[in-house]
Formats: sequence, C-alpha cells, structure tokens
Amino acid sequence: MIIVPEREIADLMTREAAFDAVEQVFAAMASGDAYNFPVVREAIGHEDALYGFKGGFDRAGLTLGLKAGGYWPNNLEKRDLINHQSTVFLFDPDTGKAKAMVGGNLLTALRTAAASSVSIKHLARDDAKVMGMVGAGHQATFQLRAALEQRKFEKVIGWNYHPEMLPNIEKVANEAGLPFEAVDLPGMAQADVIISITSAFAPSLMADHVSPGTHIACMGTDTKGKQEVEAALLQRASVFTDEVAQSISIGEAQHAVAEGLIAETDVHQIGAVINGTHPGRNGADDITLFDGTGVGLQDLAVAARVVELAVAKGIAIEVDF
Amino acid sequence: MIIVPEREIADLMTREAAFDAVEQVFAAMASGDAYNFPVVREAIGHEDALYGFKGGFDRAGLTLGLKAGGYWPNNLEKRDLINHQSTVFLFDPDTGKAKAMVGGNLLTALRTAAASSVSIKHLARDDAKVMGMVGAGHQATFQLRAALEQRKFEKVIGWNYHPEMLPNIEKVANEAGLPFEAVDLPGMAQADVIISITSAFAPSLMADHVSPGTHIACMGTDTKGKQEVEAALLQRASVFTDEVAQSISIGEAQHAVAEGLIAETDVHQIGAVINGTHPGRNGADDITLFDGTGVGLQDLAVAARVVELAVAKGIAIEVDF
Repeated sequence: MIIVPEREIADLMTREAAFDAVEQVFAAMASGDAYNFPVVREAIGHEDALYGFKGGFDRAGLTLGLKAGGYWPNNLEKRDLINHQSTVFLFDPDTGKAKAMVGGNLLTALRTAAASSVSIKHLARDDAKVMGMVGAGHQATFQLRAALEQRKFEKVIGWNYHPEMLPNIEKVANEAGLPFEAVDLPGMAQADVIISITSAFAPSLMADHVSPGTHIACMGTDTKGKQEVEAALLQRASVFTDEVAQSISIGEAQHAVAEGLIAETDVHQIGAVINGTHPGRNGADDITLFDGTGVGLQDLAVAARVVELAVAKGIAIEVDF
Repeated sequence: MIIVPEREIADLMTREAAFDAVEQVFAAMASGDAYNFPVVREAIGHEDALYGFKGGFDRAGLTLGLKAGGYWPNNLEKRDLINHQSTVFLFDPDTGKAKAMVGGNLLTALRTAAASSVSIKHLARDDAKVMGMVGAGHQATFQLRAALEQRKFEKVIGWNYHPEMLPNIEKVANEAGLPFEAVDLPGMAQADVIISITSAFAPSLMADHVSPGTHIACMGTDTKGKQEVEAALLQRASVFTDEVAQSISIGEAQHAVAEGLIAETDVHQIGAVINGTHPGRNGADDITLFDGTGVGLQDLAVAARVVELAVAKGIAIEVDF
C-alpha cells in the first residue's frame, strides 16, 4: 500500500504530467476503454458539508478506484483548512486490494486546469493571441497558468464579478511575461480563447460577447442549476465535453438541452477529437465550446501518475496493509 | 491518519464489539440519525469482478465514510487470495479529511454475523432451543458462532445443498458444546431459530418447513434475483430488515413485494424494535423474519470500533497524511 500525502503533491506533480494523464484518460473514455461510475453526492446534514464519491475504471491504464471527499464550507473560517477536501484511493484491478492513497486537493485543481488546457490544445485556433478569463478566484489561477502553455498568447484579459480579485490572474499573466487588461464582458470579444471558471447560477458571458473563431472552456458548472454562459452560445458553437451524460445533466449544456436549443447528439466527447475520430474545430470561424464537468477518471489518472512519480523518487510512504 | 491492516483485525475485533456496533447503528438508522448513501456496484469488465462503494453517515456516532471493494471470483484459484476484498475508509465529518483505513474482509464477515445475532436477540423467543442453519459455507460458520451466544440453544441442525460441507457448521456447534444433526429441509420444522446463508437464486426453505414461533434470519440475498425462502413465508411472518429500501429491491422481500404478497409498509426496521418504537415479536406463535441485506453503515460502525481498539492497544499504524 502506497501513501502520498497532500504535502508531497506540489513537488511531485507537474502541469505537464497532469496534462498527459487527463488527455490520455479522455481518449480512453471516448474509445470505450475507460468509464466513470455513477456519482454519489450527499448533503450529509453536518457542517453544511457535501460529501461523496467519484469512481471509475480505465481498462487501458488499469486504473481503478475513487475520489472521496467534498466541500466543507466552514473549514477555512473555523479551522484554517481549505474547504474542498478530497482523497484518491486506487485499487489493484486484478485483485480488488487497496493499492494507494493520495491527497486529492491540489490534484483536483491540477486536473481541472489540465482539462481546459487539453480542450485548448485540440480545439483552439493555432494562431490564438488573446486569452480571456471569466472568473479570477483561486482555481482561475490554475486554469490560466496551464492554458498559457498551449498557444503563443500575447495578452490576457479578464473579468470578474468582484473586480478586486483580478490581481490574482494579472499576477499569473505577468509571471508568464504577458500584459493583463481588465475588461467588461463585451470586451471578451477580443479574446481568441476564453476560460470561464465561476460558480454562478446565471450566465455572465452572453453569445454576443464572443467572436467567431473563439474557443471557450466552461469549467465552473458541475451542478444542476449552475450556469456560466448564455444557452444561445451553445447553439452557435460546436460543443464538446468530458462526459456527455454529465454535460447535459449537471454541466453547462444542461440549459441549452433543456431549452431545446441543442440535442444530446450535438455534444461530443473531447476524447473523440484526441483520438481523431471527430474532426473537432470546423474552420477558422467556428466557435468551439468545451463543457468541463469533471469526472472521477481524471482524478484517478493524475493520482496514478503521482504514485509513479513518488515511487520513482523514493518518497512514497509504504505501509504493509 | 490511522491504518489498521487486515492481519490485525482477528486479534482486535470481538464478536461482542461487532454486535454492539451493529446494534447501535441499526438503532441510529431507525431514529433517523444515520443513513446509507446510494450503493455503487459495477461489473468492471476485468477479471469478472464486481466492484463498488457502500457509504453512509451516522450523525450520532459521527462516523462518515465508505467500504470500497467487491468480489474478484478468480482470486483464490489464481492468487491464493480470498475472493471478497474490501477496505473501509473513515473520514472526519467535521473537516472532510481522511481519518482511517481499515482492512474490511474479516469485518464484513463479523458485521454480517452480528446482524443476524442482533435480530435473534430482539426477535427470537427467549426459550429458543434448536438452532437451524440453511447453508454451511465459510460465512455460515460466522453466523452460527455469533448466533449461539444469543440464546441457550441445546442443539444445532443444518442443511446444505452440498451436504459434504455440513462438517463446517458441525464443528462450530461442537466447539460450543452442542450436538449437531443433519436434516432435510422439512426437518427445519424443529428449529426455533433459522439462519439462511446461501447465494441461491431459488428458494430452499418453504413456508411449510417453518413452525409457528420460529425466528428466521435471511442473510444471503443481496442482489436482484437472489432468493433463499419461499415468498409465502414472508406473508405469514412479521418481517423486519436493516434497511427497507434495500429489502424490497435487492433483499429477500423483493419477491414477496413483487408478487403482491406483502407491501413495503409490512417491512419494518429492526432498529425500531431495538429503540422500542416497534413491539417486535407478536406473541409466542408469531413467525418473525429478518431480511439482512447488508448496509454500508454496518461496515463503518465495526471499522470505527476497530480503530478505537487499535489505538487503545497501541497497534494502529499512524501515518502523517
């Protein structure tokens, strides 16, 4: 039994390794080699916490297990702990024995950032120059840092409901040597790539804020009722996702499907683009939209990579379990 | 983070501790203090394995977590490992952080045995003398050993589809100083308490094999399609269970409900009897039937007890996770 505590993850895991792991598992999902189990998510009636399990199995990577944990909204204020708490457990698919336990907090941030980056690699125009951010919270910094590695961006623009948080992402832009400009939402029209990473329940980014040829990654909607972009934008766009069933039920596509603007068959797996079985972007003027809902297989993929790295570097804790 | 490996469980956990833990959590379920999460159970398409998660939260005992694992049918033959493999993970309900990991194989056997014993304590006649076993496999020995502690039994009788396995339970009877007698199924009419612990898909024990006043614990049916006793027996009996929703969907009561012989409202929580909010047995001639489907909260309850015992005895492995 191998244990990799949360405190080791930052030194072990790279954005590149997270990117590769997530790209591979999206591909495996589209080829039918990997699938996610039904998600368990419970309001447990204690500390206002949401707790649950996201499991899956990747037959190609032989990765089996789950992420367990959730959201404890009082952690930071009461205990100086982060509110999202999760742990990944990996099992040996040949025997069913527990194989590894890995801290899942930073990994969740990295795998979510990797997902929008994978979508940029496969769907954004090669000549994208302006990177737009809708949202400027803690997770937005992860998304932006990873996104900037995918194209030769020349500028970052950003909008946030609370503008005083924009320095979070300005700092990331500057660290990458890029200028930053705060814009209003119509100003997003100059972006070639937009990442939306908010926890809003009403759309911020409207269809007419987006220019032809833009790629948008909607990364904030993971629950029924949440919404980041106008449903009409999905009607105008070629829509991709990590997992179609989640996209149309708890992801950004839930609204466009419910309003009859698009059908389930209009939502395509990003893995099909990775595998080359879907052409992806349909010309320079196509708007592409990636609905990143977050699946358990992403967590398992990055955790499995961390275990390999920890063993290789000799810092895994081994317990005779 | 506390770790209690499988190899430590046998020396740590007693039948008494398992009994107390299961009795308490059944009571908490009936009073609304504890509930089970939806069960995830997947045929993963590798090694013919069934894998999944049974989670729950006990607000009274502050026990949160899950049992993960399943059934790997080739383990014994291919690898000399037992086919049922499971691990229990406990979380701190105040913070969402992982708290303990406990080997779940022996615990599963003990908590299943405890469940039928709890039902015998609360539902069997006080003057029960003859203990009947339908099934003589490995798990049957756990059920019988625990059951014999609940009444002053004078004899054990047993039937098994493969009679050559009966020495398994004969040995347990003799160790308890009791004679054993192999019987045919009609011979079960002499039993005051019957435990059925098979994995059959057709009934063995029929309604006319059971005498008035008998208590029956059906412990083998945990899947749609499985069946141990004739549905008409449930119509004749006062029916109790660990969890009503499981009882009528994947437990023994699924058949009687599907055939319209009993209604969901005829199935009562054993916890209500423990709490004194249901009277339980209705006189000396009542047939009582406990449908033990197996819930995640049982696993969490016994694992939490093991963690306490391991810490108290100084044999818990502590990892700075």
